[in-house]
Amino acid sequence: MADNQKEYYLGVDLGGTKILTGVFDTKFDLKGTSKLSTKAGRGVDAVIERIARGVKEAVDECDLSLSQVRGVGIGAPGAVDTETGKVIFAPNLPGWKDVPLKKELEKLLDVPVFLGNDCNVCTLGVFDQEFKAKPKHLVGIFIGTGIGGGLVVNGDLYCGHNLTAGEIGHMVIEVNGPKCGCGNRGCLEALASRTAIFRKIESAVKDGQETLLTDMLGKDLKDMRSGDLRKAIRRGDKFVAKVIEEAAEFAGIGVANLINILNPEIVVVGGGVIEALQDEMMPTLVKTAKDHVMSGTMSGIEIKASKLGDNAGITGAAVLARRGTA
Amino acid sequence: MADNQKEYYLGVDLGGTKILTGVFDTKFDLKGTSKLSTKAGRGVDAVIERIARGVKEAVDECDLSLSQVRGVGIGAPGAVDTETGKVIFAPNLPGWKDVPLKKELEKLLDVPVFLGNDCNVCTLGVFDQEFKAKPKHLVGIFIGTGIGGGLVVNGDLYCGHNLTAGEIGHMVIEVNGPKCGCGNRGCLEALASRTAIFRKIESAVKDGQETLLTDMLGKDLKDMRSGDLRKAIRRGDKFVAKVIEEAAEFAGIGVANLINILNPEIVVVGGGVIEALQDEMMPTLVKTAKDHVMSGTMSGIEIKASKLGDNAGITGAAVLARRGTA
Repeated sequence: MADNQKEYYLGVDLGGTKILTGVFDTKFDLKGTSKLSTKAGRGVDAVIERIARGVKEAVDECDLSLSQVRGVGIGAPGAVDTETGKVIFAPNLPGWKDVPLKKELEKLLDVPVFLGNDCNVCTLGVFDQEFKAKPKHLVGIFIGTGIGGGLVVNGDLYCGHNLTAGEIGHMVIEVNGPKCGCGNRGCLEALASRTAIFRKIESAVKDGQETLLTDMLGKDLKDMRSGDLRKAIRRGDKFVAKVIEEAAEFAGIGVANLINILNPEIVVVGGGVIEALQDEMMPTLVKTAKDHVMSGTMSGIEIKASKLGDNAGITGAAVLARRGTA
Repeated sequence: MADNQKEYYLGVDLGGTKILTGVFDTKFDLKGTSKLSTKAGRGVDAVIERIARGVKEAVDECDLSLSQVRGVGIGAPGAVDTETGKVIFAPNLPGWKDVPLKKELEKLLDVPVFLGNDCNVCTLGVFDQEFKAKPKHLVGIFIGTGIGGGLVVNGDLYCGHNLTAGEIGHMVIEVNGPKCGCGNRGCLEALASRTAIFRKIESAVKDGQETLLTDMLGKDLKDMRSGDLRKAIRRGDKFVAKVIEEAAEFAGIGVANLINILNPEIVVVGGGVIEALQDEMMPTLVKTAKDHVMSGTMSGIEIKASKLGDNAGITGAAVLARRGTA
């Protein structure tokens, strides 16, 4: 089949718990998706096969065949070498060290594959599709289980010397603050991620704090989700409202640091926590950020919640495939 | 005189207290300098005339004339518009708001003038002359009365949307930490600048802390300089050693944040405090930074003290002139 008939791009969002795949046409309309659990515990090879299966299922869902796909992009949760297409290290995927993901998938799919870090890829998706690649400089910050980010500089994804730029979640903003998964203290991720928020709530509940959440989910807060916090706040739970307010303040300080350092045109905030709690968090986040940016340097800079939500990853991965095959 | 006979670049480092000017030949050998106090209190026009006088004195010192100068670069302490050549705002120069410095100086000197932010200009000087423009991405951080920085991305000075990128000193690293001149709390500048270090020492001495510094300078620590701290430490003053150790730790956390965000090839540390206390601060600064950078992302990245010292400003300003007239 001639290349000009290969009219689709695939984007894969590889996460620690699920693999989301989207099929986009050349206008970037989303034609269909597939969703599989990652089953990371089964090992590297099994996950790679599941990614390939997810791709095939998404293509089939759209009544297409792989021969109509121009390229597949993947965002992986860890340090990646975008040039060789290797996952260097992925903290949430056991055993993933120096995995030649691009090469293995190209063997299984016979389609060009392009690899990026998940948060960089989300940033690329938001930049290219939500903002139509117009801003010169943009910072993406994604608040979910962890906090990650991506930088667009002069219209291009900026990856740095070891291709690991954008580790925004491990910026220390409170020396001697709470312990972070990375081993340090006071990282933004240890103060404003879903993990940090849930830990704070669980610890307070253990200490006898009353909250609607225990009525909703039971004393052990089983299966708590960000959406539960939104419900509790809307029903008047002042404790949960305060925890979320504080997380939004920390996130706002993180955003201010990024604006002071990078002075981008747009800071876009996304991820599961923001998707669920946008109305509760964004006003405080924006106000705190503006209060902490150097006087006179904020002119024309916008801080916005992303509209792409959970689709930022598959969108960005498909953009990666388009840029790679262009 | 033909342009190819205009064989000199001038670099001006405009500070709150002094105006330093350097004459460089096309090989960037420093042929001579002039130094004038700024006399900022005399107002904007008086300072502009003093800058012009400093330029003329430096040229005369080298037995040259202005007609042999290809361009003059200036680093100014504040927000500048590099395109129009205006100083937007300079916190340490009273009355400096929207000052068309380029235009005014070109009137007085009849030579092309190029303007940059002082820390950006220092970074450019270190990048171009100390590192021979080889690193792709470099971050400069300058610790003096305040703390400022500059970013080189893809071999070029990165200035951001409002041309104010690199405000590294106002990155919050200790929420609710000590008050900063900018009005916020816990900025790097409020923890690791000369001002922060001196304030800590003065306050401890008031509270009865014993230190060799009072033997050296008297009870009121009059005219204390960074070099005095070095002398006290080398004579065994454990209190001063501890204050400097803590400042180096804070600076190291700031450097780690920048590496986590930007993953540059080189972080170069300069400024008066580092020039005076390099041996005392750099080992702790580098160790703390490495301890706080995300595991596996530091490979090949160097953290170095600049060798240009106080000449970084005039060197960078002359590089600005060379790039502007190229």
